[in-house]
Amino acid sequence: MTTAEYLRKHLLDHNFHRVVIITDENVNKLYHNYFDFLRNDFEVRTYILPAVEASKSIETVIEIWNFLAKEHYNRDTFLVNFGGGMVCDIGGFVASTFKRGLNFANFPTTLLSMIDASIGGKTAINIKNIKNAIGTFYFPDIILEPDLSFLKTLPNKEIMSGVGELVKYALLFSKDFFSELLEISNFKTDTLNKTWIKSCIEYKLNIVRKDPKDINLRHILNFGHTLGHAFESYYAQLGKPIAHGLAVAQGLYYECYLSYKLAGLPEENWKNIAFFLKKHFEITLITECLLKEISQFLINDKKNSSKRLNFTLLSNIGNPVQNFELSIGDLNKILLK
Amino acid sequence: MTTAEYLRKHLLDHNFHRVVIITDENVNKLYHNYFDFLRNDFEVRTYILPAVEASKSIETVIEIWNFLAKEHYNRDTFLVNFGGGMVCDIGGFVASTFKRGLNFANFPTTLLSMIDASIGGKTAINIKNIKNAIGTFYFPDIILEPDLSFLKTLPNKEIMSGVGELVKYALLFSKDFFSELLEISNFKTDTLNKTWIKSCIEYKLNIVRKDPKDINLRHILNFGHTLGHAFESYYAQLGKPIAHGLAVAQGLYYECYLSYKLAGLPEENWKNIAFFLKKHFEITLITECLLKEISQFLINDKKNSSKRLNFTLLSNIGNPVQNFELSIGDLNKILLK
Repeated sequence: MTTAEYLRKHLLDHNFHRVVIITDENVNKLYHNYFDFLRNDFEVRTYILPAVEASKSIETVIEIWNFLAKEHYNRDTFLVNFGGGMVCDIGGFVASTFKRGLNFANFPTTLLSMIDASIGGKTAINIKNIKNAIGTFYFPDIILEPDLSFLKTLPNKEIMSGVGELVKYALLFSKDFFSELLEISNFKTDTLNKTWIKSCIEYKLNIVRKDPKDINLRHILNFGHTLGHAFESYYAQLGKPIAHGLAVAQGLYYECYLSYKLAGLPEENWKNIAFFLKKHFEITLITECLLKEISQFLINDKKNSSKRLNFTLLSNIGNPVQNFELSIGDLNKILLK
Repeated sequence: MTTAEYLRKHLLDHNFHRVVIITDENVNKLYHNYFDFLRNDFEVRTYILPAVEASKSIETVIEIWNFLAKEHYNRDTFLVNFGGGMVCDIGGFVASTFKRGLNFANFPTTLLSMIDASIGGKTAINIKNIKNAIGTFYFPDIILEPDLSFLKTLPNKEIMSGVGELVKYALLFSKDFFSELLEISNFKTDTLNKTWIKSCIEYKLNIVRKDPKDINLRHILNFGHTLGHAFESYYAQLGKPIAHGLAVAQGLYYECYLSYKLAGLPEENWKNIAFFLKKHFEITLITECLLKEISQFLINDKKNSSKRLNFTLLSNIGNPVQNFELSIGDLNKILLK
């Protein structure tokens, strides 16, 4: 059964009458007929968002709420978030808050959303340049096995953004997986191994099942994200936003350096990781000035308290150590040395 | 241990550092020093809302989000909703959405919020005159036994609004309780029996524990609310808002009439209930025109699908029958006959 057929079966089995597809302009341009096969059995409407991170705002959420209210959508309605991370994040937030919760599923179209945003029940919008400051924990009704054929039309920048998260998983759970990535000279759709994607999803779901609300174990998945999110927010504030996975790649670089300095990551591994990340991603040089700029975002990060920053580091590839706490001062000392 | 002492103990036991009190102007005027006893151990800030239903808007939520973000509040922060239903509804929504969830408790100051809004984990804001169209299920960390001394300063209209919900509980679970209410000629703070309040809370919590997400059993608690919410939204749209419990009293009147006509509520009981409700509350006469006006609100109600309205009715006092479905047409026929 294809992903689409599986979704149709779920909707029929659970007696939904109406389906609202939330998507963005880019996806809609390429796949505007994609859900036509549902029209025989359901009333289907599509809500299209501008394909920019700025759509992840409360203003967009209010527009969708008003659309749903005006059309009398109710609990017999099923929401499908059809797109990348932005669509999954905002669509999930709408699903969790409209009439105290609509049933929904994510239908990811990007590598990044397949292995990250579409699974795990984290919904999010941004306020005041703080990335994901607002959100809920709200789990989709079903987790659809992603349809990898969407990757064929994915721009290279989006592939690389997904690779940023892919590397994170490799470093977290498997030396072999990382060795396979090391061998790739140029990431393209056809160099992406299906097994990699499946094993990332499995790894994440396994952790999320044990700690759905991110109380402790799930912090592991934030590897690369303490600094990654701060970079992402910083560039967004500058008016030069960068893709999530590209910011994560930079976060990984510096958090692997912290791992080498503080958590016992062997020098040889650090060198391999640094080589790999510099080869495939642009890594911003950290200066005193930049660190000062990103400190405000570090403090506002959900993971951190006002005095301590929370990191997951590596004692080796495949060996994460969570809840490593550092002050902004400590961080300065190590990164600027 | 008093309610306030119990809260302090909880905050100390769980290592919170900062406390944000969300309250409204009326409560703040009377009790602005109330939480001073926390200042020795915690950093305490108060956020004051205008004491009107219009505060239950996304605009207010955005202001609170921005305040929390600006002050770097984080997961070491505990939110206390100090007030009536409006404060509990909106404060709970903020708690559930800021950084994907802050810890919180409700500290109710009105009869209505003590027996209803402060317990049960429903958070809510209004959009486009649709009452509680947006919200989440999000449960407080602790349920504090309400401090009944707040009732002393409660205006009579607020007492009667609470009595509206109190009657609902009496009709749902106890003939004796209803008989006791029948004997009261004039509801005032000192005619309110503590046992009534405790038993309402116990009854609700028992149902909520079994069906927290309002899938089925919890529909019982919507008795009086299918029409009650529609009245409330209608008057709000007219620019003449009425208190929630007063709208519920009207909803109860007509839903008891439906119970008598459709669900076997004995005529004598219906007459007693009608006598009681007319004695203590203003009951709007239902006309064809009014029914037409409130139909839009009935259709937009979370409980209803686009074609069927969902009622809880009584086969007798103490015997609710849930998921009684009627079309708008059926409702017209019965109520206008």
